[in-house]
Amino acid sequence: MSGTDKTQEPVTGGPAIVLVQPQLGQNIGTAARAMWNCGLTDLRLVRPREGWPNDWAVKAASGADIVIEAARVFDSTADAIADLTQVYAATARRRDMIQEILTPRAAAAQMRAQSAAGARIGVLFGPERAGLTNDDMALADRIIEAPLNPAYKSLNLAQAVLLVAYEWYQAGAATPDRQVVQGVTGPASKADLMGLFEHLEGELDACGFLRVREKRPSMVRNIRNIFQRAGLMEQEVKTLRGIITCLTTRRHRD
Amino acid sequence: MSGTDKTQEPVTGGPAIVLVQPQLGQNIGTAARAMWNCGLTDLRLVRPREGWPNDWAVKAASGADIVIEAARVFDSTADAIADLTQVYAATARRRDMIQEILTPRAAAAQMRAQSAAGARIGVLFGPERAGLTNDDMALADRIIEAPLNPAYKSLNLAQAVLLVAYEWYQAGAATPDRQVVQGVTGPASKADLMGLFEHLEGELDACGFLRVREKRPSMVRNIRNIFQRAGLMEQEVKTLRGIITCLTTRRHRD
Repeated sequence: MSGTDKTQEPVTGGPAIVLVQPQLGQNIGTAARAMWNCGLTDLRLVRPREGWPNDWAVKAASGADIVIEAARVFDSTADAIADLTQVYAATARRRDMIQEILTPRAAAAQMRAQSAAGARIGVLFGPERAGLTNDDMALADRIIEAPLNPAYKSLNLAQAVLLVAYEWYQAGAATPDRQVVQGVTGPASKADLMGLFEHLEGELDACGFLRVREKRPSMVRNIRNIFQRAGLMEQEVKTLRGIITCLTTRRHRD
Repeated sequence: MSGTDKTQEPVTGGPAIVLVQPQLGQNIGTAARAMWNCGLTDLRLVRPREGWPNDWAVKAASGADIVIEAARVFDSTADAIADLTQVYAATARRRDMIQEILTPRAAAAQMRAQSAAGARIGVLFGPERAGLTNDDMALADRIIEAPLNPAYKSLNLAQAVLLVAYEWYQAGAATPDRQVVQGVTGPASKADLMGLFEHLEGELDACGFLRVREKRPSMVRNIRNIFQRAGLMEQEVKTLRGIITCLTTRRHRD
């Protein structure tokens, strides 16, 4: 998916993403890309294994330079979250601790409310293989766990970041569930539709398709229903009438 | 995120994921992993550039072998979707076509309903760089476009697959938004709490913390409130009482 839209401003001010001991620069880059896809810019790295800055991260970020360039490195998880007031930990491994576990969607709604009330929020993600340590988990106020296939819950690091960032963005997005892109045309009026129906039915009468008198009303209804359901645009009605004209002209010629 | 849970069965029967001319085996593998995270198994590849089977794909799938092994290769998009009855196209590039555009969430709800009514569903994803061609788009009934940062909508291929698969899974998941994992313990009773309060206040009286008589009621209320809000478990009340005992024993010893 690609493309930009200048009519909306990017969303910022979302949670900090804290990657604790990430192993691969490539995963940091893909995570940064996922963050910027969802308007997040505050990336914090705790002891990245391959060091920082990292060329693989830049390459994998694929243009999300704003996130990579602003990334900060910390020596400990505690340092990385020192300025925050609410910390979530993303994990799929249940620990022997008393924890409140939220879906990414519920966490996003909560973060939006907390953020509006002035909270400074961060989400912890553990290393690719091992996940967060119990000590890091104990620094978090709440746990985020995505409902996933119980037979295979293991998410790639960047995929885990994407789900949290995506839900954050969705919780504030005003995009309607359904849009119809119409180009230069608008929906057909009922008059347009009636014109089409009468044109078509006139030709169908002429060619004998509707010749059985007692069946004609139900046949007409069924044919009209096909075009009703299509939700035709003005331009499409013109196109269909052109098709009818073309087809019948050819027949007249034969 | 990692871990498994044997109490739930994996969800299957979801949409086929059709990758049209994917460039990199690694992306096919990561997409397969995202599919299996969300219980999807029907992967279809139209002319993968690096050929098939592909070692990079197997490596990147990171255990989602069930998807990789069952993947099928087709010569054209039309062949890949021939057995389907409803086809969606995932893209962020608006075309000069009349299209119904759905969010991944709205599309997932629609797919669930269609699937329950017997539809065989697929979702098309274009090549990493160029996206779907207009010809491929014209094969789809509806468009899926994720609401994303307008300044940076370009999703990695596997990330795009994840969002569609994730929303499919969420639309059928019965996971509560919020759970509290309690381990072997249960919530503290009010009697437990009162026992804690009286224990603490007795010691605070003894050490002089509550010595200013007119302030005592409000101080007690404020202290109780802290522990009320914490939603304490039975085991935690015992722990707190142990702490009080330990602290005061030490003081008595001094």
